[in-house]
Amino acid sequence: MSFNATVLTLYPDMFPGPLSHALAGRALANGLWSLEAVNIRDSATDRHRTVDDTPAGGGAGMVLRADVVASALDAVADDRPILAMTPRGAPLTQARVRSLAAGPGTILLCGRFEGFDERLFDAREIEQVSIGDYVLSGGEMGAMVLLDACVRLVPGVMGAASSGDEESFESGLLEYPHYTRPYDWEGRTIPEVLRSGDHARIAAWRKHRAEVDTRLRRPDLWERHTGARVQSPSGARHEDEG
Amino acid sequence: MSFNATVLTLYPDMFPGPLSHALAGRALANGLWSLEAVNIRDSATDRHRTVDDTPAGGGAGMVLRADVVASALDAVADDRPILAMTPRGAPLTQARVRSLAAGPGTILLCGRFEGFDERLFDAREIEQVSIGDYVLSGGEMGAMVLLDACVRLVPGVMGAASSGDEESFESGLLEYPHYTRPYDWEGRTIPEVLRSGDHARIAAWRKHRAEVDTRLRRPDLWERHTGARVQSPSGARHEDEG
Repeated sequence: MSFNATVLTLYPDMFPGPLSHALAGRALANGLWSLEAVNIRDSATDRHRTVDDTPAGGGAGMVLRADVVASALDAVADDRPILAMTPRGAPLTQARVRSLAAGPGTILLCGRFEGFDERLFDAREIEQVSIGDYVLSGGEMGAMVLLDACVRLVPGVMGAASSGDEESFESGLLEYPHYTRPYDWEGRTIPEVLRSGDHARIAAWRKHRAEVDTRLRRPDLWERHTGARVQSPSGARHEDEG
Repeated sequence: MSFNATVLTLYPDMFPGPLSHALAGRALANGLWSLEAVNIRDSATDRHRTVDDTPAGGGAGMVLRADVVASALDAVADDRPILAMTPRGAPLTQARVRSLAAGPGTILLCGRFEGFDERLFDAREIEQVSIGDYVLSGGEMGAMVLLDACVRLVPGVMGAASSGDEESFESGLLEYPHYTRPYDWEGRTIPEVLRSGDHARIAAWRKHRAEVDTRLRRPDLWERHTGARVQSPSGARHEDEG
């Protein structure tokens, strides 16, 4: 087994869910990765199986108790990195996905309500990760997104031809646009260069389009890309794009 | 029905999946939103139900045909905004989520393989959206993330007390950290200010922590926050955070 995932959640029935379909689902069925969903509630110690309490200092919602979550975590912790899905975390990047996929797997903590008692992050080695700048009803879908991103990079999951090297973010740029048959659709045709058979011209066109689209759509990525290139002209840039 | 979602996908069985659980699931069961998953393959016209073809110009993978996807789209299009989940899209923000949640719903296009034939975006009014700077095996989990983010803001889904106003990104800052009982956990105590009962001091502490954590963890957000504040000192900033 090359990638073992354990998810700590209040909704274990959500898993594997969409991860049982398509690419990730086939890989799961074929034993290329494993997924275990553990109910945080099983670590509660009172007879009501309480996992949360009101926020210290007042305010709406409920906070997940540090003692209960730590107990759930300690029961599964091993050499795998522990990630907590939270909007307060560091933005997930393709570089982090790639490094996780090359490791033994991950333990993912899914919050609900207002989130975790902050002392959890002082007391245990937990990486706080955000999948984007929006708020979800819980960490479960973030965990699914992270696992889907990792699993497709686990050796054997994608064919060798689809290593993903040309995809968005792998080079620090958005991917170039794609076209396929029919040649003429609603009066719109495929760019002639793509039908030229001239591989050098096609590669140059794709590189140009990746650069133009990144500059126009994602000036933030473009700035990092050009900045990093000035500092590091070697061309080996994959790990710089964090 | 206040929010109607239609998802165009090659994997309709993935839905509602995790969206049938917890907050979104209860709201779905209570009719506060609706979800329809349509198989793009049903719009194929040949007897093999082909939806994709090889990329013009060569390269790995397959590209979703513009004619088939447009046909699926045209069959469901109405006044709802159409979003395509793609890493080439604009990053999803909480401001966009909030505006979508206030509207009639959305039609979501989920890609697979290398993505869509680019002409689709020239020929139809489609907003290209990315949930983050990483690559997934398809658009389905991005669609789930987007729907979960929207649905919790649909009127009636969250209680009035949990309007989400203090959450991360709503003010352009990360949310402050939370604490709850027990007071002493593994020798770590809840910050004294949160037990003071002094609401003004608590509010000031939370604001300070939100600012410090944003500056340290997300210098990009902090820069936008302070930059926007200089330009617009009115305090009404929610819609600027796109």
